[in-house]
Amino acid sequence: MSDEPLPDGFLTPDAPEEFFEADRQAVYAAIALRRDIQHFRTDRDIDEAVLERILRAGHLAPSVGLSQPWHFIVVRDVKTRERVRESFLRCREAESARFSEERRAAYLAHKLEGILESPVNLCVGCDLRDRDEVILGTTVQPEAIRASACCAVQNIWLAARVEGIGVGWVSIVEPAVLKREFGLPAGIEPVAYLCMGYPVAFRSRPMLEETAWAKPRTVVEVTHRERFTDRRAAPLSDLDDARTQGEPGEHRSRS
Amino acid sequence: MSDEPLPDGFLTPDAPEEFFEADRQAVYAAIALRRDIQHFRTDRDIDEAVLERILRAGHLAPSVGLSQPWHFIVVRDVKTRERVRESFLRCREAESARFSEERRAAYLAHKLEGILESPVNLCVGCDLRDRDEVILGTTVQPEAIRASACCAVQNIWLAARVEGIGVGWVSIVEPAVLKREFGLPAGIEPVAYLCMGYPVAFRSRPMLEETAWAKPRTVVEVTHRERFTDRRAAPLSDLDDARTQGEPGEHRSRS
Repeated sequence: MSDEPLPDGFLTPDAPEEFFEADRQAVYAAIALRRDIQHFRTDRDIDEAVLERILRAGHLAPSVGLSQPWHFIVVRDVKTRERVRESFLRCREAESARFSEERRAAYLAHKLEGILESPVNLCVGCDLRDRDEVILGTTVQPEAIRASACCAVQNIWLAARVEGIGVGWVSIVEPAVLKREFGLPAGIEPVAYLCMGYPVAFRSRPMLEETAWAKPRTVVEVTHRERFTDRRAAPLSDLDDARTQGEPGEHRSRS
Repeated sequence: MSDEPLPDGFLTPDAPEEFFEADRQAVYAAIALRRDIQHFRTDRDIDEAVLERILRAGHLAPSVGLSQPWHFIVVRDVKTRERVRESFLRCREAESARFSEERRAAYLAHKLEGILESPVNLCVGCDLRDRDEVILGTTVQPEAIRASACCAVQNIWLAARVEGIGVGWVSIVEPAVLKREFGLPAGIEPVAYLCMGYPVAFRSRPMLEETAWAKPRTVVEVTHRERFTDRRAAPLSDLDDARTQGEPGEHRSRS
């Protein structure tokens, strides 16, 4: 891939802003089939050319004021990853203490990282250091800088998915350890630590849903018209209605 | 679209984790052709069915501990949007004062919102309120909750793109105004305010690059191997090398 925009072959000639139906569906498929992967095949590396395509997709993310605040640190060194994994184990121990005894066993039974089995780890940092001038768009919402780096993570996740590569986000690791291990200077904050490699499988549902750790919400429950409606405060029967309906459009008629 | 995963027609039968080449390219095209849009056609509304597909794509985003912390508030009411735009105007005035006199005129010449021209505004909120138990994965990195909501925004942006719909992120608006206008309770924070509609055009380059407001970085400049390398501290000739090379793989040989 070059830095140039792709040709317009994906766009319909009669409505040149619209994608062909098949290409549109491919994007929805990538979004629907993306999973958080922590079980990796150990017999298959990621080609550098593939990794570069994925990072380039990350770099095409939107960013406030065109700040492009992300940094991608590609980590293959095993010793480094062993130290990151030690931090994971300590942090998991700390987090497990916050669950009830009954839930703690279930928590610890989940595989929540693939730091050493995956061939590549990626630390995504966000550059919050002062620049020559203020970044356009950050005066009243400085958090937009970090948000930009997160958009890059999602591009990486989707690009990896269509390359057949799984990504697992490990948030159970000390930010201070990441800063030290990767030499991040003051003002560059780690926002994501990703394990990347070919997965044992892309399951049809998120792991935490399969194991019944958490019950997913429907899109209806998170969609509101004009104003936020606190459905936690609503009678249970209303919530059940929302769960059964399944379509945000149908909710509209109720509000 | 239903809540069920899409059929496997996008995956290659011999390597069922991999997308067909054409579908893979479609995803890269969506990523490359996505733009921040603030110029909208005022003669074309967004169909509810299309909007629902886009929100469903947002709801398929990854989230820490399957927390799905996002809320999507669909805003069509013109009076509400007028008040949001008044906040934009005040915030833009405040931000403009932070630029040099010379840059201020250029800043003010940019169209940085399409709040009233676009048929739909979308306020994406993030639910940080206490739950029955701690969210898995948030003990040492509580910021992962907000990051999840940002991943949903990027899914929305890409889904909109393949529907021919433009999205513009307006970060020049008071969070307090968004909370008040949309009735967000304490603990639900606005993370993004989006204008959505059919654009006048999807330009080939970001607006702030076209107007030479900001100079984009290359992916080489943000890609590091094993450890962060501060290229701001590097001799200018090295930086020029990196800009000319254009491929992250080539950087590898230098570090």
